[in-house]
Amino acid sequence: MSYDYIREGDAIYNRSFAIIRSEADLKRFAPSVEERLAVRIIHACGMTDVAADLAFAPGAAEAGAAALAAGAPIFCDAQMVAHGVTRARLPANNEVICTLSDPSVPAQAKARGLTRSAVAADLWRAKLGGSVVAIGNAPTTLFRLLEMLDEGAPMPACIIGMPVGFVGAAESKDALIQYPNTPHLVVRGRRGGSAMAAAAINALASAKE
Amino acid sequence: MSYDYIREGDAIYNRSFAIIRSEADLKRFAPSVEERLAVRIIHACGMTDVAADLAFAPGAAEAGAAALAAGAPIFCDAQMVAHGVTRARLPANNEVICTLSDPSVPAQAKARGLTRSAVAADLWRAKLGGSVVAIGNAPTTLFRLLEMLDEGAPMPACIIGMPVGFVGAAESKDALIQYPNTPHLVVRGRRGGSAMAAAAINALASAKE
Repeated sequence: MSYDYIREGDAIYNRSFAIIRSEADLKRFAPSVEERLAVRIIHACGMTDVAADLAFAPGAAEAGAAALAAGAPIFCDAQMVAHGVTRARLPANNEVICTLSDPSVPAQAKARGLTRSAVAADLWRAKLGGSVVAIGNAPTTLFRLLEMLDEGAPMPACIIGMPVGFVGAAESKDALIQYPNTPHLVVRGRRGGSAMAAAAINALASAKE
Repeated sequence: MSYDYIREGDAIYNRSFAIIRSEADLKRFAPSVEERLAVRIIHACGMTDVAADLAFAPGAAEAGAAALAAGAPIFCDAQMVAHGVTRARLPANNEVICTLSDPSVPAQAKARGLTRSAVAADLWRAKLGGSVVAIGNAPTTLFRLLEMLDEGAPMPACIIGMPVGFVGAAESKDALIQYPNTPHLVVRGRRGGSAMAAAAINALASAKE
């Protein structure tokens, strides 16, 4: 049996992005960074209609790209997000940090009655100012981040808010959008996930297709 | 500012699964393993309508669960899939193997004009018989696996076929379904991804909710 399919990596990317640009409604996205973000997020999930659920704060995409270029660290809520970041695309060999498996997290979570994902966000605080945050899994991480900002934690350069699921995902993303002056990149509703969050980082990291 | 949300991990899982079971049409799935698979795949993507795209070969879910219980290795096409597998759920401390970063892969891919994802599948061959394969990213891995079976490679116990995207994803999954006697668990169409593939492994691994 022989299958007729495109076998070469660059050709697959090129064809994928061409299909996305021919099918998706991308008119409302600013050229360059925002459009690239939309294309890569669609590419990660296979759904062109997700474009309608994207909510980008003005300037957030450019701020995220500039922060990465200047060497900002990337905080991820899940190992899957961290492992979806293409290291070769990062402009400044940026640190990719996931604190979820920090040894202090399980006991803290139990003591405070929180998820490990929420507790892990507290460990970002020292380097949070000007960083790029990518949340692709846990609504509780995003809620906890907003509480930390309210407690006086410094603002990241860019907050990728893309937790997925049925409990708190849509609500945490609405709260992020409504929080004053957050530089947010959001997929509204229940959809989201680690692949979309990693794709957003990869889009901010480099203009290479 | 204070947010009203469920903060405790087990409570979030319970509520999520209750919402999924109340909203999704799961009647056609066999009790126990198939139903659990459907629920966890929906949970991973936030979309109840993905249930309609699930194609499970008769007995494949049970075969996958039995293989894991007996200690079968798990082959993943991407690091994101491997990192989505919850190690604590695995019944036999099963090996989770991703050969994509094997040092031989880049040169082989270049020499053969294939993707690294396709070449990486060739490194599964020695332990492929009776294994559990989880493909959540690359259609070329799935096409290459089918070619290997055609070349005489031994059949896995279960093939989770869930690559995502616009070029080859739907086609490779249709080819898997049509290939004779494959024990497949598929999300048809463009949708899929590493989170769904990892969720399928996690469902096969344990009956724990």
